[in-house]
Amino acid sequence: MPGNKAVVYKEPGRVEVESIDYPGFVLKDGPGVNPDNVGRECHHGVIVKCVATNICGSDQHMVRGRTTAPAGLVLGHEITGEVVETGRDVEFVKVGDLVSVPFNIACGRCRNCKEGKTGICLNVNPDRPGSAYGYVDMGGWVGGQAQYVMVPYADWNLLVFPDRDQALAKIRDLTMLSDIFPTGFHGCVTAGVGVGSTVYVAGAGPVGLAAAAGAQLLGAAVVIVGDLNVERLAQARSFGCETVDVSQGDPRDQIEQLLGVPEVDCAVDAVGFEAHGQGSDSGTERPATVLNTVMDVTAAGGAVGIPGLYVTGDPGASDEAAKVGSLSIRIGLGWAKSLSFATGQCPVMRYHRQLMQAILHDRVQIAKAVNATPIPLDEAPRGYREFDAGAARKYVLDPHGVVSGSAAA
Amino acid sequence: MPGNKAVVYKEPGRVEVESIDYPGFVLKDGPGVNPDNVGRECHHGVIVKCVATNICGSDQHMVRGRTTAPAGLVLGHEITGEVVETGRDVEFVKVGDLVSVPFNIACGRCRNCKEGKTGICLNVNPDRPGSAYGYVDMGGWVGGQAQYVMVPYADWNLLVFPDRDQALAKIRDLTMLSDIFPTGFHGCVTAGVGVGSTVYVAGAGPVGLAAAAGAQLLGAAVVIVGDLNVERLAQARSFGCETVDVSQGDPRDQIEQLLGVPEVDCAVDAVGFEAHGQGSDSGTERPATVLNTVMDVTAAGGAVGIPGLYVTGDPGASDEAAKVGSLSIRIGLGWAKSLSFATGQCPVMRYHRQLMQAILHDRVQIAKAVNATPIPLDEAPRGYREFDAGAARKYVLDPHGVVSGSAAA
Amino acid sequence: MPGNKAVVYKEPGRVEVESIDYPGFVLKDGPGVNPDNVGRECHHGVIVKCVATNICGSDQHMVRGRTTAPAGLVLGHEITGEVVETGRDVEFVKVGDLVSVPFNIACGRCRNCKEGKTGICLNVNPDRPGSAYGYVDMGGWVGGQAQYVMVPYADWNLLVFPDRDQALAKIRDLTMLSDIFPTGFHGCVTAGVGVGSTVYVAGAGPVGLAAAAGAQLLGAAVVIVGDLNVERLAQARSFGCETVDVSQGDPRDQIEQLLGVPEVDCAVDAVGFEAHGQGSDSGTERPATVLNTVMDVTAAGGAVGIPGLYVTGDPGASDEAAKVGSLSIRIGLGWAKSLSFATGQCPVMRYHRQLMQAILHDRVQIAKAVNATPIPLDEAPRGYREFDAGAARKYVLDPHGVVSGSAAA
Amino acid sequence: MPGNKAVVYKEPGRVEVESIDYPGFVLKDGPGVNPDNVGRECHHGVIVKCVATNICGSDQHMVRGRTTAPAGLVLGHEITGEVVETGRDVEFVKVGDLVSVPFNIACGRCRNCKEGKTGICLNVNPDRPGSAYGYVDMGGWVGGQAQYVMVPYADWNLLVFPDRDQALAKIRDLTMLSDIFPTGFHGCVTAGVGVGSTVYVAGAGPVGLAAAAGAQLLGAAVVIVGDLNVERLAQARSFGCETVDVSQGDPRDQIEQLLGVPEVDCAVDAVGFEAHGQGSDSGTERPATVLNTVMDVTAAGGAVGIPGLYVTGDPGASDEAAKVGSLSIRIGLGWAKSLSFATGQCPVMRYHRQLMQAILHDRVQIAKAVNATPIPLDEAPRGYREFDAGAARKYVLDPHGVVSGSAAA
Repeated sequence: MPGNKAVVYKEPGRVEVESIDYPGFVLKDGPGVNPDNVGRECHHGVIVKCVATNICGSDQHMVRGRTTAPAGLVLGHEITGEVVETGRDVEFVKVGDLVSVPFNIACGRCRNCKEGKTGICLNVNPDRPGSAYGYVDMGGWVGGQAQYVMVPYADWNLLVFPDRDQALAKIRDLTMLSDIFPTGFHGCVTAGVGVGSTVYVAGAGPVGLAAAAGAQLLGAAVVIVGDLNVERLAQARSFGCETVDVSQGDPRDQIEQLLGVPEVDCAVDAVGFEAHGQGSDSGTERPATVLNTVMDVTAAGGAVGIPGLYVTGDPGASDEAAKVGSLSIRIGLGWAKSLSFATGQCPVMRYHRQLMQAILHDRVQIAKAVNATPIPLDEAPRGYREFDAGAARKYVLDPHGVVSGSAAA
Repeated sequence: MPGNKAVVYKEPGRVEVESIDYPGFVLKDGPGVNPDNVGRECHHGVIVKCVATNICGSDQHMVRGRTTAPAGLVLGHEITGEVVETGRDVEFVKVGDLVSVPFNIACGRCRNCKEGKTGICLNVNPDRPGSAYGYVDMGGWVGGQAQYVMVPYADWNLLVFPDRDQALAKIRDLTMLSDIFPTGFHGCVTAGVGVGSTVYVAGAGPVGLAAAAGAQLLGAAVVIVGDLNVERLAQARSFGCETVDVSQGDPRDQIEQLLGVPEVDCAVDAVGFEAHGQGSDSGTERPATVLNTVMDVTAAGGAVGIPGLYVTGDPGASDEAAKVGSLSIRIGLGWAKSLSFATGQCPVMRYHRQLMQAILHDRVQIAKAVNATPIPLDEAPRGYREFDAGAARKYVLDPHGVVSGSAAA
Repeated sequence: MPGNKAVVYKEPGRVEVESIDYPGFVLKDGPGVNPDNVGRECHHGVIVKCVATNICGSDQHMVRGRTTAPAGLVLGHEITGEVVETGRDVEFVKVGDLVSVPFNIACGRCRNCKEGKTGICLNVNPDRPGSAYGYVDMGGWVGGQAQYVMVPYADWNLLVFPDRDQALAKIRDLTMLSDIFPTGFHGCVTAGVGVGSTVYVAGAGPVGLAAAAGAQLLGAAVVIVGDLNVERLAQARSFGCETVDVSQGDPRDQIEQLLGVPEVDCAVDAVGFEAHGQGSDSGTERPATVLNTVMDVTAAGGAVGIPGLYVTGDPGASDEAAKVGSLSIRIGLGWAKSLSFATGQCPVMRYHRQLMQAILHDRVQIAKAVNATPIPLDEAPRGYREFDAGAARKYVLDPHGVVSGSAAA
Repeated sequence: MPGNKAVVYKEPGRVEVESIDYPGFVLKDGPGVNPDNVGRECHHGVIVKCVATNICGSDQHMVRGRTTAPAGLVLGHEITGEVVETGRDVEFVKVGDLVSVPFNIACGRCRNCKEGKTGICLNVNPDRPGSAYGYVDMGGWVGGQAQYVMVPYADWNLLVFPDRDQALAKIRDLTMLSDIFPTGFHGCVTAGVGVGSTVYVAGAGPVGLAAAAGAQLLGAAVVIVGDLNVERLAQARSFGCETVDVSQGDPRDQIEQLLGVPEVDCAVDAVGFEAHGQGSDSGTERPATVLNTVMDVTAAGGAVGIPGLYVTGDPGASDEAAKVGSLSIRIGLGWAKSLSFATGQCPVMRYHRQLMQAILHDRVQIAKAVNATPIPLDEAPRGYREFDAGAARKYVLDPHGVVSGSAAA
């Protein structure tokens, strides 16, 4: 049995790469594992050798200490890899398959899974509907910023790439299928983006850029990305987006300069609760800023997709209401404009197959759009640091040297 | 030319029945008329003799002084009547037609109307998308709690009843097509109510009761209505709804007693911004209570329809944020549950024809559900008073004695 | 191990009740079993004690000799029962659960299942997408007109009734969830039936009557059922449908008498390829009659749901084209009217849970609508005979005396 | 009043350019004008100076003598131009506006228009729902292959280009908005084409090429176009489509070579009733060939969009059934695969605004895709001839020399 190195959350601001147990088909006790999940048998699972496993903005919420994540938590929910062992009950996935693992863990047997709502599976997290690998309050499934990880309900969850060599040649793109590409795309779909739409994407981090690329793929006429970070805005412009620098003030004015009207058809909030203010207020955290902005810039009758995370508990929030996830929202404005809002985890399975097809047939260059940047697993702490500092990069951990090409898959 | 008596807003708490001008095909200046609309020619309009014209909960917001409605405003946006004169450009509607008038005024020529979004027509209100008769900030179209009213863009807006005698026999039901039946139904549709759904409707006023009847018509398995007013709850039970008395505490517990689980599939907010607290807090206005409750009682993956009005300006609100329509909303909870939200005016035209069919073929008894109560036009002030005091009634003004049967149509 | 009696197809016009093997978790060879399925292990399966198992019109196609069904085929795909044994890999279904079995067998792991298209599962039938119990060319899964049957992929396929006693009290209704109620409902949904629709259902057999009941549940204003069989038409009228006797001529005229216009909004073909002509031609088989009729009576812009079966091979057809499933269809008429058409097996899982809720909460009386008629398993041959002769009944086989109440469940 | 030259159908195989009356706001008698439309007043109309007006494949059906079109019919339903006069009742469209005219004439007041079904307007054609300019059995509205044409219900029907100069610069693209681009796109939308789809488009004429471009815009992974005409197939390849030469045999095999599987997700029939056979049969007209092929090559659960025209009367058909629009269709195969079918005229208004946005923002090069070829109005007979001979071109008549740039707009 090989060793297994993984990225572990130690304390606010610090992650380390450590050796952890090689995964098996039973969920063991450990930091953050729900007691009701301890000892759970997963004969439906497979062991995946992680070929590419990305650092996500939502990992940063934990590492910044903005959640109740326990020390010792193994991180990582963006996993692409090779199946190296299959559980007793696995019927269709085979050893050797190269696969994308949706970040949401889903059973494929409950009412919600049957309805395609795999982001809120009822059977994988004793605390609430929905789960993910390596995440606080998500049941305790071990994270996949590691060399190996166990994926339960493998026949249901996994997307098998049709051709191994073709997939390896596009691995930097395909690794975005586990989370951010579907997540950004879901933001667009729920915002009603279609052929000819004008779209505002709040946030030029990886999810925002993925949303922008998704909007283009959906045929949007104009995609405008807003952020405070000029490097990230330049990244957005690199693949044909227009940009708005919200540190310069109200996006409404800048949108009007671009479009002739101050409003777009559809908007996506790819920022979430750690939002900052705008203009002179941009140095201060203002958790409802983005929600209120997207209502302001969306034309009457439009819709807003909210893939950006809003939490039920934020111990680091600046006021008592925000600590329990309650924000001051201009609902009166939204109502007057007949807006609709869609929230929550993206059900990755709803989109990953079609987005894989778009990647494999060269219809989208998602790795370029998000500036995919492979680094060795051992350098994960640097990746976390640079990403937190605002690098316009999507860090792809490369535990076996396959992405960088230093080793064969 | 006949005289024209109408209900006029005088000051907070007071309406009077006064003589106003007989309507013509030009929009004249007057209280609340947008200057850009003064002199607007409406050869596309018709004059309607109002046969039934209802008092609406949203009229009460104005009469209670919770808006900037000017004294002298002629009220009334729920209009059913007979066409007595047609403008030069009207082609399909005929004198003698008995018609339902959607409360939203729509041009039938703009992008939004072409997309069926008649609640946010771009051409009828110089202030913002969307308009209505007799309402503050809606462009200044004269209200229809009157003997006669002008309806613009008549070929587009009007629903003509197929048979006059059949329609008169069901006039107490059909009068609900102008607003509350479609509005409640829209709340259900946008909440995803379908065959077999469990539904929570917050509010047992006329819109809430109409939503409940609409949910039944859509095949809901269980419809639960919540309110503080025991008389209105009894009205809800009269047609097969379950009820929750929110003055007794958290609806979640009472829902669990009814369903075995504390959550429903779909929820409708038929209350809006003048909501009160729950349990011991039920004597106090708490504008976000209902929004937060419906998030709490809706199961993960569900949707919330919000036909209840939220405003952009509420001079009578208890705090500064609420005065501009900003409320403290538990968006973190909603996000964790992947909820969706739909807001805004109901586009009546999307639903009125199909709901008329359901009424005419005895598939729904909407007049009974909302306790339709005809009163003479002259008694409108009493109707406003009793309705404001919480009567479990929907007051139908009867300007020509047709509804009560004291006069022929 | 108990014995196992079952209904077996012997030759055209004849079925018998015989003893067959008690089911296990491996698919054995036998009449009609696809060689590629022989020996297939089903640790994901359960053994169901059949409490109610209905005779279906599609069984009659086989028994009439209109298919290539082999002698010895064990029939039955409408199964409701109690789980008496669970396979090694079953995690959520428990022994003692009372369950409804969708007639389509689905794996819950393929692309189609993930998209909710369980009627065309890719993994259960080596011949083509889609499968069913006890049916020709469907892979060879043993039928369930028996005392016991094996149900594969049980966690995915089964609908567990929430309360055993409540379910037994409504077992005559709930047994319709395995096929005809969802199938008729699917016909309505794909035909666009909604609140206020006018609907024509071709065929007053059990699926047609279920479609009619489904249309009512969906809020249809008027449901018109057409057939040649006066007894079945009377059954349709018994729960509020209008009827058209197609032996009297063109439905278009009769519809005009009912509605004032000769067309409906939506139509459902619940007859399929063994259709007869109309009027004086009603004694002759005319396989395209119903398709052409529904195009004729559906208003421009409408949709047609086609749950009625059309086959790829019909050795008993009267002409060469029909023998390979090719019919002369007035597509020019359909095109001029901008009609849409939806065909195929109903994906039962998409609907059974919501319809169960409607049954359990008394929103629909489906057993009465289809005239559910329990008979002992031993009397199955009589049931087939009477049903084939046109009885206005839905025969429910009662292998353990539970439905009739002669034995406890 | 200027003169008005127009393209007139003379007899099978012959059109001529003749002087006709300058249009007014009353519909006059003439060849093919329905008596009930004679004298119809159109104060809601405008006079359009035709800047670009295309020859359509559906015009060819008339010119080939495959319809009952009367001699003298003024042809042309693909109109783009400048408003030069507005009727009394026109409120929003202004003289000088550059506009696209949807080929379907719609009133904007009937039930179907309100539902967005402008292809089957109830008020413009006394014969049946739906109308078009210059077309047989469509009510008698004068065609627009002319210098000037009257467009009724102008506020409803017209799409005004936002900027005149920008529009003139892209006039070869924008002229496709009146029919073929929305029509091809509608085929894709109704076939369920989305991001990642594999698509088969039958027919590489202008509508087929527009469908292919539309599929790309919708994010399709692979677009395969089939035809007999090698020049048109080369045109399809010029913008990134794969192609299938159906003269070489069954498309199924060729699709398998391209995709590895013999079926696509979605198919579009852009040929219609004048289809030819395949392989050795490709010299013979086989009206059902394309319908049967698309069923064959579409994977189970897929959908088929049918913008290709099928008629209710074809006097030139080779058999009696086809003369009344009845074709031998393999419905058994379609049913076994659970396919859906959508037919009929494209409701242009549903799509033209969004497609205009895609053109104006350089998201699609539709003029290149269909090989737009401007020719003077006087050369229309040559255009008809060459197009009928199979030229891989879309002929754009240029009555005022604006498209070619020989005159200012």
